[in-house]
Amino acid sequence: MTIDHTAARTVADPSLPEPSAELDRLYADFARNSTAPLWTQTNDLMPFTPKPSAIPFVWRWTELLDIARRSGDLVPVGRGGERRAIGLANPGLAPTAYATPTLWCAIQWLGGHETAPEHRHAQNAFRFVVEGEGVWTVVNGDPVAMRRGDLLLTPGWHFHGHHNDTAEPMAWIDGLDVPFAHDMDFGFFEFGSERVTDEASPAISRGERLWAHPGVTPLSSRGSSPSTPLGAYRWEATDAALRAQLELEDEGHPATVEQGHAAIKYTNPTNGGDVLPTIRCEFHRLREGTATAPRHEVGSSIWQVFEGRGAVVLDGERHVLQKGDLFVVPSWVPWSLEAETSFDLFRFSDAPIVEKLNFARTFLSGTR
Amino acid sequence: MTIDHTAARTVADPSLPEPSAELDRLYADFARNSTAPLWTQTNDLMPFTPKPSAIPFVWRWTELLDIARRSGDLVPVGRGGERRAIGLANPGLAPTAYATPTLWCAIQWLGGHETAPEHRHAQNAFRFVVEGEGVWTVVNGDPVAMRRGDLLLTPGWHFHGHHNDTAEPMAWIDGLDVPFAHDMDFGFFEFGSERVTDEASPAISRGERLWAHPGVTPLSSRGSSPSTPLGAYRWEATDAALRAQLELEDEGHPATVEQGHAAIKYTNPTNGGDVLPTIRCEFHRLREGTATAPRHEVGSSIWQVFEGRGAVVLDGERHVLQKGDLFVVPSWVPWSLEAETSFDLFRFSDAPIVEKLNFARTFLSGTR
Amino acid sequence: MTIDHTAARTVADPSLPEPSAELDRLYADFARNSTAPLWTQTNDLMPFTPKPSAIPFVWRWTELLDIARRSGDLVPVGRGGERRAIGLANPGLAPTAYATPTLWCAIQWLGGHETAPEHRHAQNAFRFVVEGEGVWTVVNGDPVAMRRGDLLLTPGWHFHGHHNDTAEPMAWIDGLDVPFAHDMDFGFFEFGSERVTDEASPAISRGERLWAHPGVTPLSSRGSSPSTPLGAYRWEATDAALRAQLELEDEGHPATVEQGHAAIKYTNPTNGGDVLPTIRCEFHRLREGTATAPRHEVGSSIWQVFEGRGAVVLDGERHVLQKGDLFVVPSWVPWSLEAETSFDLFRFSDAPIVEKLNFARTFLSGTR
Amino acid sequence: MTIDHTAARTVADPSLPEPSAELDRLYADFARNSTAPLWTQTNDLMPFTPKPSAIPFVWRWTELLDIARRSGDLVPVGRGGERRAIGLANPGLAPTAYATPTLWCAIQWLGGHETAPEHRHAQNAFRFVVEGEGVWTVVNGDPVAMRRGDLLLTPGWHFHGHHNDTAEPMAWIDGLDVPFAHDMDFGFFEFGSERVTDEASPAISRGERLWAHPGVTPLSSRGSSPSTPLGAYRWEATDAALRAQLELEDEGHPATVEQGHAAIKYTNPTNGGDVLPTIRCEFHRLREGTATAPRHEVGSSIWQVFEGRGAVVLDGERHVLQKGDLFVVPSWVPWSLEAETSFDLFRFSDAPIVEKLNFARTFLSGTR
Repeated sequence: MTIDHTAARTVADPSLPEPSAELDRLYADFARNSTAPLWTQTNDLMPFTPKPSAIPFVWRWTELLDIARRSGDLVPVGRGGERRAIGLANPGLAPTAYATPTLWCAIQWLGGHETAPEHRHAQNAFRFVVEGEGVWTVVNGDPVAMRRGDLLLTPGWHFHGHHNDTAEPMAWIDGLDVPFAHDMDFGFFEFGSERVTDEASPAISRGERLWAHPGVTPLSSRGSSPSTPLGAYRWEATDAALRAQLELEDEGHPATVEQGHAAIKYTNPTNGGDVLPTIRCEFHRLREGTATAPRHEVGSSIWQVFEGRGAVVLDGERHVLQKGDLFVVPSWVPWSLEAETSFDLFRFSDAPIVEKLNFARTFLSGTR
Repeated sequence: MTIDHTAARTVADPSLPEPSAELDRLYADFARNSTAPLWTQTNDLMPFTPKPSAIPFVWRWTELLDIARRSGDLVPVGRGGERRAIGLANPGLAPTAYATPTLWCAIQWLGGHETAPEHRHAQNAFRFVVEGEGVWTVVNGDPVAMRRGDLLLTPGWHFHGHHNDTAEPMAWIDGLDVPFAHDMDFGFFEFGSERVTDEASPAISRGERLWAHPGVTPLSSRGSSPSTPLGAYRWEATDAALRAQLELEDEGHPATVEQGHAAIKYTNPTNGGDVLPTIRCEFHRLREGTATAPRHEVGSSIWQVFEGRGAVVLDGERHVLQKGDLFVVPSWVPWSLEAETSFDLFRFSDAPIVEKLNFARTFLSGTR
Repeated sequence: MTIDHTAARTVADPSLPEPSAELDRLYADFARNSTAPLWTQTNDLMPFTPKPSAIPFVWRWTELLDIARRSGDLVPVGRGGERRAIGLANPGLAPTAYATPTLWCAIQWLGGHETAPEHRHAQNAFRFVVEGEGVWTVVNGDPVAMRRGDLLLTPGWHFHGHHNDTAEPMAWIDGLDVPFAHDMDFGFFEFGSERVTDEASPAISRGERLWAHPGVTPLSSRGSSPSTPLGAYRWEATDAALRAQLELEDEGHPATVEQGHAAIKYTNPTNGGDVLPTIRCEFHRLREGTATAPRHEVGSSIWQVFEGRGAVVLDGERHVLQKGDLFVVPSWVPWSLEAETSFDLFRFSDAPIVEKLNFARTFLSGTR
Repeated sequence: MTIDHTAARTVADPSLPEPSAELDRLYADFARNSTAPLWTQTNDLMPFTPKPSAIPFVWRWTELLDIARRSGDLVPVGRGGERRAIGLANPGLAPTAYATPTLWCAIQWLGGHETAPEHRHAQNAFRFVVEGEGVWTVVNGDPVAMRRGDLLLTPGWHFHGHHNDTAEPMAWIDGLDVPFAHDMDFGFFEFGSERVTDEASPAISRGERLWAHPGVTPLSSRGSSPSTPLGAYRWEATDAALRAQLELEDEGHPATVEQGHAAIKYTNPTNGGDVLPTIRCEFHRLREGTATAPRHEVGSSIWQVFEGRGAVVLDGERHVLQKGDLFVVPSWVPWSLEAETSFDLFRFSDAPIVEKLNFARTFLSGTR
């Protein structure tokens, strides 16, 4: 948002002041006093509806995998170069590498037997695995296996590192609130162990052993926590929940968000809320041949195709999608999905920020 | 709490008024005006610590089963005689059939192919199955299979009936907040269908298909609800959670409530709170040979032995316990458990009432 | 609630079992095992709508004042006889001195220069002053002047005593959750100082100096507390709020609860909720000549006329009311008010218990 | 945050990859695929502690008033040029006119008998008056007088306009979450009436008549609302609260935030929380001669001197302050105040954003 008073003054807007030498002196004094008039910026600053700088955009998984693999060959991972992660840089937000004003999304690559050292940060993070396995992410000392379809959580200020227990490389996506924390100046960072603090490779993490029992929670727990104590949400549970919703729909019972569209929210078992204070995670499944109603929402989200073929219509433009492809929906951009086959997508968004701060609005069917 | 002014006056308590004819006239006028002095009742009304009328008491499962079976032979079930349920009547609360001032607990018996008709009430209810199977409880039209170790919920104002899909009779325990709702005058009741509205006998209920996925909830859900939407908490999940806690303890990680004592709370997945607005449900497992620290708590609870042999010490008195035995712990009565074998117990209590109304206190080790 | 199995068996209810020797043996065994069948008690235990034992009742202020004054002459106040308080004993709840199943209400009398010693209890308390002044209630060491129209709070476990700083006696009403805490076994009690710990008589308490500024709260406060930190709600604020509501109604703006009926809720400034965890306090003002719509509510309440003349209709029966008169509305009893003159009434109820435990229902206009 | 891969590569950081032609091709492919590596940006993106672009800065009231007055002469106010407001543009955030990443602050000027037309926006706003009077801000049709020391609220999506009822001009400051809503793409805007919808000039608004009674709230209110229903927080209440805190401190009671430092938070009477979903408002008073302990906080704030003389030390640099001067404290910049005379300051901050999203940290005494 650049302020160009000259431009403003040359437009014949009756609400703007008449040019004059005195006015020029006034504008110069604004600048000298580190001030700026609202009347030259209102349209940009306070539009009728959100006018995101971020643009709707699609990244192709095949291309991301290619550059990630080449990074694996050329770029070391270790203390200092903490992570071999390649961020999705929304072209509308250049020169940053932000996907949206709030959300960071990257593909991370870890070669066979490599270790990404431990650190922690106030920023909240998760990983989602579209393919592959063999890496354990160790969160506050708890090794968490990463497998296809799993959502792995690293809430703010939890130490975490990753180690590849196999000879094969593995890639996954990271989601964080890095842009938000950076632009708000909320972030803290601290180095931890050079290697992960527990190199075991259990099939199931300790957090899951305590918390991944439906409706059954440790009596020793002290109640609501701001982030989920459950470090892994496994594909088996997600898939079973989605399958059940579609079966219930077939049987005539309410279960889906709209006809042919099953969806779940990953939740914090201590309070039923979102898994992270700033990020909502969801998984969507569309029946073959269905399409969702177009929808506007306040806040931004990022989607990744997990399985199947289909398309997304973003602000009227249709993008065909394949497994692993990622796309971003900036605030208030109308979106709808179309399923050529059964179509599975992971989504994360800044909805907790929008809702906790009372900015939520949703409109269906493409009209405001 | 009987008010006997005469008794009060004859005691030589310096804080009490001198007997006189005028005082007699005053006390008579108290009664005539439907009033009563606090000074003659304070000790009873406001003791230093809770002095429950309910007493610690143990009911034997073999005896309960016997009278339940005989009731099955002699007493019909059907509209009017809605339920063949036999309440545990705390001797301290006679002539009521209350187990505690807040909680009702009964053994219910349903013969082969019998049906208990549908009704609903503002009172909150659950069933817990210590043995047997074959009955479906149908809650708001959703048939829920009842099997050993399962907790089945019937939140307030949900229609419910039970039908036995087999030729064998089945017994289980019911827990309700009937005494609380009755004494507070909070209850409503309505008849429903003469038979259950869905006679299917699925292995898993629709509520479970939507909600029994760890941390994964329907996106179509509208957020926090006062009672759990999950109608059944299955034994497999409870058992797995308890086993995991003891294994984690063995591995040196925090998980249990005290050494050798695993415990879970059944929770509402929409908000992480209790399954019912007035009733907390828990399950405890003690390792063979362990004992819990004596404990006083505000509020009352009822326990049932699910498996194993052991004892409970209630206010200093030790009661040996076997499978199915039930005991009640009135408010502030010190209790501790001893496990002869591995020892599994189900518990329910009025803790949500105590905590939401800010009366909670706990003291460990038998001293206040 | 007395259980008379004989009575039940002699009634020709098709849902009840046939009399037989075997059935007699079964009923005897119920008793021997401290159990009782539900089928003989359902109607009493679980009525279609609340059937309170408490009855609608009116106490006359002139009579209460008379017996309080005579108690002042005959009954000492001091350690042991902690309070010279005379409870309103609902005839339906004999032999207790409860006003409702949850609420205690008493007239308290303190002679010139008398002191009621300090104590504390888990039970929550307040005082409301319909006439008089001169007494300071000292709550956790903070002296709070009591004057006509004031509501004074003593949340659970706060030390409190009263001292009369004048030569004139003073009377007021106390409201507590004593019946609730007694019957639930939630109460604790502790003696404090023999005299009040601060005998000063400031016009305004320290709690008010910190908290009685509209919308303006101490930054040093640590957020939401279960009870109000504001020890006194002064008549001036209550009166001004009610006057404003009626003026706003005159000007055509929404402000009152119904036409001609202004009402306020006393609230905890730390969270906007009720002043006590178990008790709601309100004040109502009706314009001369108005009547409220008949209303059923779950839960019980007690009202005191503060000023004016009018009537209450309780379950169809009309009671004329004058200044100071008190009446009780048991759960689900329809009530409406009629104002002969401008009519001011204080009210307290167990609504926080009803609402926090999810039993709330309200029906307007006398039909369910 | 500009990403300069060249720079990164030329630094001899062992964690960075070796330059090579292949690496050059990789970096080119990053750009071609709208991606960017994390390893060249980590230090900027995720610093050890917040490294705000916003700088500590002081604006002088005399200079702001001068340019505001000259704007009053040269710049019209009316539809299109909605407000004659001059924003404080933090030099570290150029070319925006943001005061901090979340907060907008402007001086607004309204000439005698001028009207700023009505509009509404999702952005939350308030006005604070350091001197002058005569303008009414009309919020959802409720005219609210603006006077010295008053805080006036305009929660998101409330229509509002201002009209000057006198012949004299008036200036005040506006605070909004415009930078936050703009950068997050959360904002909506709508035009309203060309003039204010109610040109009355009452001394007190309707919102105050309903809500400005300490602890006493309308029974017709429907509970917690996200923003305060109280449109005006008057100087008299603020001043009285601060005076009382210092007097209580003199008397030996806890009341202030630290010795000699009284402070209040403006709160929403429906829930005790902040007046706006995104903005906290406070008022501070230091005794003559006192200084506050240096403090770091996550999140940014803006202060205005209301009365007295003193100084602020921002990141070690001391700035002398006079009435009306404004200064900004970016996130994690240590600050302390020094009072030459009794020293009154208004403050607003983004603390609700920080706290609701779980990023809060505070450190006292200048060391982390």
